[in-house]
Amino acid sequence: MRANLTPDLGLAARLFDGLHERGFDGVGITRDAYGPGEQAAHDLVRATAEGLRLETDLDPAGNLYMTLPGRDRAAKRLILGSHLDSVARGGNYDGAAGVLAGLAVVGGMVEAGWQPARDITVLAVRAEEAGSWFPTSYPGSRAALGLLPAEALAVRRLDTGRTLAEHMRAQGFDPDWVARGAARLTPDNTAAYVELHIEQGPVLDAEATPVGIVTGIPGARRLRAARVVGEYNHSGATPRRYRADAAIALAELAHRLDDHWAVLETAGHALVATFCVLATTAEAGFTKIPGEALFQLDVRSVTPASVDAMFAELHRLVPAIEARRGVRFELGAETLSAAAPMDPGLRAGLAAASRATGVAYREMASGGGHDAVAFAAAGVPSAMLFVRNQNGSHNPHEAMRPEDFAAACAVLTRFATETAG
Amino acid sequence: MRANLTPDLGLAARLFDGLHERGFDGVGITRDAYGPGEQAAHDLVRATAEGLRLETDLDPAGNLYMTLPGRDRAAKRLILGSHLDSVARGGNYDGAAGVLAGLAVVGGMVEAGWQPARDITVLAVRAEEAGSWFPTSYPGSRAALGLLPAEALAVRRLDTGRTLAEHMRAQGFDPDWVARGAARLTPDNTAAYVELHIEQGPVLDAEATPVGIVTGIPGARRLRAARVVGEYNHSGATPRRYRADAAIALAELAHRLDDHWAVLETAGHALVATFCVLATTAEAGFTKIPGEALFQLDVRSVTPASVDAMFAELHRLVPAIEARRGVRFELGAETLSAAAPMDPGLRAGLAAASRATGVAYREMASGGGHDAVAFAAAGVPSAMLFVRNQNGSHNPHEAMRPEDFAAACAVLTRFATETAG
Repeated sequence: MRANLTPDLGLAARLFDGLHERGFDGVGITRDAYGPGEQAAHDLVRATAEGLRLETDLDPAGNLYMTLPGRDRAAKRLILGSHLDSVARGGNYDGAAGVLAGLAVVGGMVEAGWQPARDITVLAVRAEEAGSWFPTSYPGSRAALGLLPAEALAVRRLDTGRTLAEHMRAQGFDPDWVARGAARLTPDNTAAYVELHIEQGPVLDAEATPVGIVTGIPGARRLRAARVVGEYNHSGATPRRYRADAAIALAELAHRLDDHWAVLETAGHALVATFCVLATTAEAGFTKIPGEALFQLDVRSVTPASVDAMFAELHRLVPAIEARRGVRFELGAETLSAAAPMDPGLRAGLAAASRATGVAYREMASGGGHDAVAFAAAGVPSAMLFVRNQNGSHNPHEAMRPEDFAAACAVLTRFATETAG
Repeated sequence: MRANLTPDLGLAARLFDGLHERGFDGVGITRDAYGPGEQAAHDLVRATAEGLRLETDLDPAGNLYMTLPGRDRAAKRLILGSHLDSVARGGNYDGAAGVLAGLAVVGGMVEAGWQPARDITVLAVRAEEAGSWFPTSYPGSRAALGLLPAEALAVRRLDTGRTLAEHMRAQGFDPDWVARGAARLTPDNTAAYVELHIEQGPVLDAEATPVGIVTGIPGARRLRAARVVGEYNHSGATPRRYRADAAIALAELAHRLDDHWAVLETAGHALVATFCVLATTAEAGFTKIPGEALFQLDVRSVTPASVDAMFAELHRLVPAIEARRGVRFELGAETLSAAAPMDPGLRAGLAAASRATGVAYREMASGGGHDAVAFAAAGVPSAMLFVRNQNGSHNPHEAMRPEDFAAACAVLTRFATETAG
């Protein structure tokens, strides 16, 4: 059933331009989730899909399905998806690249008059960027999967203060359907979810490799509101032995944990550990010993044991530093997210497609979370293909090269024809 | 010439109450320098001095001289002094205790009908609290000594935004006299400057000793606006070897310098070293590796070599951390202040007076700066007597006990009768 198909890169290029035009805010790209920015992107993408004569449809949460019908409409579909919202003042590629890649792949099939055996659906998911808009994970994809808890509809958008339900309703969607837990997508009607996304880190660029096949999306243990309490005292008049210096206690903890990370890495663990915030407060200033310091800690790995090893060291260090430095740590609540391994069969399929198209790849863990986490959690076999990108993501300087996007689309076309052909 | 004199502690107690009444702001004590708060304290103290029939006089900078005439009016005078301003929302004792102790000592002499051989002047200095009001060191005492540079008259009060000269003029003083460098006090007319002050640290309290005889006031080397520049990156997607984490670089520097302080202390150095500020910036937050961190460093010692030893370690660590962590330190300008050793003869006199009155004492370095620095720099033999105080200083909880103040006044009376008798 294999055809010698090529993706429609011109179509994707025009869409990137159109999205940039609609999303540019003077500094970067802003496509606000369940707001005018995301909707403008959906409108453009949907019009393009209609021009390709794909079947287009929305679920009651506003996710957009653009389907090339297969010969067997009852067979489980293949989804090529990602999200169309962006962070505030972000870049043009995070999210959009996956949707546009899907349209380029399917557009190439339409132009060649090639019909797959099963439906191929390009899916534009709503509201993936939790950090900028709704502080909940993957509301769009979880709603499509019937897995968004009703209470998540009550979270408020960080800028507007209006709830997710209010935002959905304002756009004509149906939060009551979401609250009932109805599912549009299930393992019974979906063969696979495959998401192309720009890499959000520097690895592919540093290692001169155009694409990455994701092994899994890390789980995390996080402290979001931890602090160290010591005692404010005069920095000149308080000898060393009378101090309870919150800042030095925190510096010691951070430095020692960072050393432990290096030790674990040498021992073969793959993880990342970051003090995202490490700071004395507004009360600090000259001639005072800091009496308080705040921190946020983010530890992630595809392997839970590696995350746990860092937290074990944290819990060993804290009482030792408290006893020695006369301070008190208040670690606060820990937030957890489970690791999402990607499907081995799909990973093998992507690797085979890369080799067949002559595109160099490496296997790698994802750093950030993606809608693929929600699909994997729902039991839908899931995979991700990363595209080399300069300057990270979530900033106006995202800089995926057209030739890398083309290489990734070639892999995805080959993969889709093998999987759905 | 020794007399069996006792200080007038009742007079001091009434003045502490009167100052508290005038200075309480609802939270703590506020006596604003060259403003109504300080002036109310001066008015009360001057009226008391006039009640004792002391000679009272202002210099053109507004410093208040309250003099018990000696038998030889041409002999160099003994000054018992301190300041009457306070920080905003501070305590009742920092500064005022020294002036009120002087009045208690001289008041006891007046009541006993005892005349010293030389003039004893109780001096109420203006504007010692640079951190709250005028950001310049010791403008009152330096003006009295003819050593305040004209440009210091242009500094602005932090809250009012008006210059020191404007504040002086508004109260009827003469900044032009100050600008000319005229001196009211010189080594030729002043035998000694002795300042009683609450200890600003916990040492006397922790060591159960009522008074301290100050060996010297530390010099300092300070970084007031230092920073570390790294690179903001995704905390999940950026492996260890691709990071330029400003926060961890700063944590390492702070932790290692603190360790070096402990090493120096074990080797006999007496110093203090404080990261008063150690902080990621407002740009920091979840899922980001900190690309910038700010710090302030305050290193002090009576012995310049001890301060220099810390800075040598700083300058050794910085390039090593830069090379290893891919960050750049910008240390900014360094501010220096010279150490002010206290006069050995006066220290011996205070020690002898303590022994004679049965008051336990210890020798100790000052932590903070005091007007005694200005007098010592002008060549006037200077000394300080610390009084045990609970809860530090510069806060509403200063808590000098009456019996400790009484013990210190007894030492000061004995010292003054020996020195000026």
